[in-house]
Amino acid sequence: MSEHVTICEVGPRDGLQIAKTRMTTEDKVAWIYSLAAAGIPEIEVGSFVPPRVIPQLADTPDIVAQLMGKPPKWTVQVLAPNLRGVQNAYNAGVDKIAIPVSVSEGHSMANLNRTPAQSIVMMREIMDWLKAQPRKVPLIAGASTAFGCSIDGVVTTKQAVALCKGLADAGVDEIMLADTVGYAHPAQIKEVVKATRDEIGPVLHGLHLHDTCGLGIANALAGLEVGIRAFDSCLAGLGGCPYAPGASGNVVTEDLVFMLESMGFSTGIDIEKLFAARAMLHAGLPAEPLSGQLPKAGIPPTFRKAA
Amino acid sequence: MSEHVTICEVGPRDGLQIAKTRMTTEDKVAWIYSLAAAGIPEIEVGSFVPPRVIPQLADTPDIVAQLMGKPPKWTVQVLAPNLRGVQNAYNAGVDKIAIPVSVSEGHSMANLNRTPAQSIVMMREIMDWLKAQPRKVPLIAGASTAFGCSIDGVVTTKQAVALCKGLADAGVDEIMLADTVGYAHPAQIKEVVKATRDEIGPVLHGLHLHDTCGLGIANALAGLEVGIRAFDSCLAGLGGCPYAPGASGNVVTEDLVFMLESMGFSTGIDIEKLFAARAMLHAGLPAEPLSGQLPKAGIPPTFRKAA
Repeated sequence: MSEHVTICEVGPRDGLQIAKTRMTTEDKVAWIYSLAAAGIPEIEVGSFVPPRVIPQLADTPDIVAQLMGKPPKWTVQVLAPNLRGVQNAYNAGVDKIAIPVSVSEGHSMANLNRTPAQSIVMMREIMDWLKAQPRKVPLIAGASTAFGCSIDGVVTTKQAVALCKGLADAGVDEIMLADTVGYAHPAQIKEVVKATRDEIGPVLHGLHLHDTCGLGIANALAGLEVGIRAFDSCLAGLGGCPYAPGASGNVVTEDLVFMLESMGFSTGIDIEKLFAARAMLHAGLPAEPLSGQLPKAGIPPTFRKAA
Repeated sequence: MSEHVTICEVGPRDGLQIAKTRMTTEDKVAWIYSLAAAGIPEIEVGSFVPPRVIPQLADTPDIVAQLMGKPPKWTVQVLAPNLRGVQNAYNAGVDKIAIPVSVSEGHSMANLNRTPAQSIVMMREIMDWLKAQPRKVPLIAGASTAFGCSIDGVVTTKQAVALCKGLADAGVDEIMLADTVGYAHPAQIKEVVKATRDEIGPVLHGLHLHDTCGLGIANALAGLEVGIRAFDSCLAGLGGCPYAPGASGNVVTEDLVFMLESMGFSTGIDIEKLFAARAMLHAGLPAEPLSGQLPKAGIPPTFRKAA
């Protein structure tokens, strides 16, 4: 049996948060269902941030409410910036909550208005609150700017490992190392993954990669080669970060899934159905440029059919 | 000292052969000099094919003549399809000659109008002729469709190795394994490279990759990891193959060099000067779409300055 790799589609959150035009709530929900129908096991459907901060995601509570009748096969994940966001997400009934924390001081202040050390303190409070609730909702921390920062520049492996250690000690369930601005290169990916895993073990869950400098897929390959089996990605390579100047789109789901399946990993995702979800995205956001090579070329005739 | 990786820029040949508009000879020569000024050590400047076959490259003899006064620091390579082309290239004074040979029967007939077996026979005649000449001009064979074919579909590792063995036995100096249509994936790259090297040793020189399905840079990484230290690439990801339906651009020089230099390999190439060569390409071919992520994002502040 082929080894499984888990894709978390972050397009409805990371992708839409900087889209120039708005997608209607109805279109978003239909798009999310089309992503789930393609077999994506985890979808980050929005963010419990105040509407004034990211107006594009103001309808997240509404979206989550509409998804509550979905089959249990796939996970509804949302982002939350703080304890209040976590409480709102929990009460809305989501399956999993992601919290962004920055490794670099500059991005942390710009994006979250707190230092990395203050984020760790906050995370302990959040975990205390979550553990006191009757329902178990896993919390995944995203270690942003783990490979470099457009504000602070170089981020050392030591800095990334130290933040992840603090998060693991605070009791988070999973950690994603995030190349928020897309400065990472493959050798660095391997170094930081190995150093982090040496420190915190399997709490290191996966990688969140951007394709700013064209190395997104190569960085995913580097991660795979050092044992990473979970990736965030965005359909059509949408995304960026409003508080990270120069950041461009996420690694493209279509191209990433094609690489994984071609190499014999199993993602559970049907690429033809991903193309259908892409068409739905385009219909809902016609002015947004869509990235990705595979969708332009089509699936090669040599591509093995998933078992 | 950092390990060297050799880039051969094939834009003036592979890139321009399917460009929709024409670049003047004067602009081509200026562009080639700008590529050399960026530190690219080998440049494929054109093709000695009959002008009616590829009219975009009809001025190759003129370009080569104009380059004869260049400093010896960089290599003028041209493509030649057969013995007559090799003779013309040799007599024009080029430094190195590349000959395309196809692994798959379908691409071989469509592109070269001969079978792979007939290509090997031809290659023996070419090597006999070349060895009888007073000047040593290295011959590099490109093993096209080594990882898949848009006409024949799957190409097996065994097929690729068998062709390379025939080429090595014929006495060619170097062989490039070419993913002409961009169907390869990283695990396949490693498998074919290793199997080929087991059979022919260091005559296997490098990889010629396309980015059709978005895996070009990841495939380069896979090649690097199994010891490949030479790559063809195209500035701005130009290129394709007129006889391979569905093939899209070559791996992008700018992004590839960025990955290599970031990982600590030395290419001798100055990325800022590559951007200048890109601007010159755009001036000469304003209607041609240019690919590449790094040129859009700019060089990250974390990028180490080459020693």
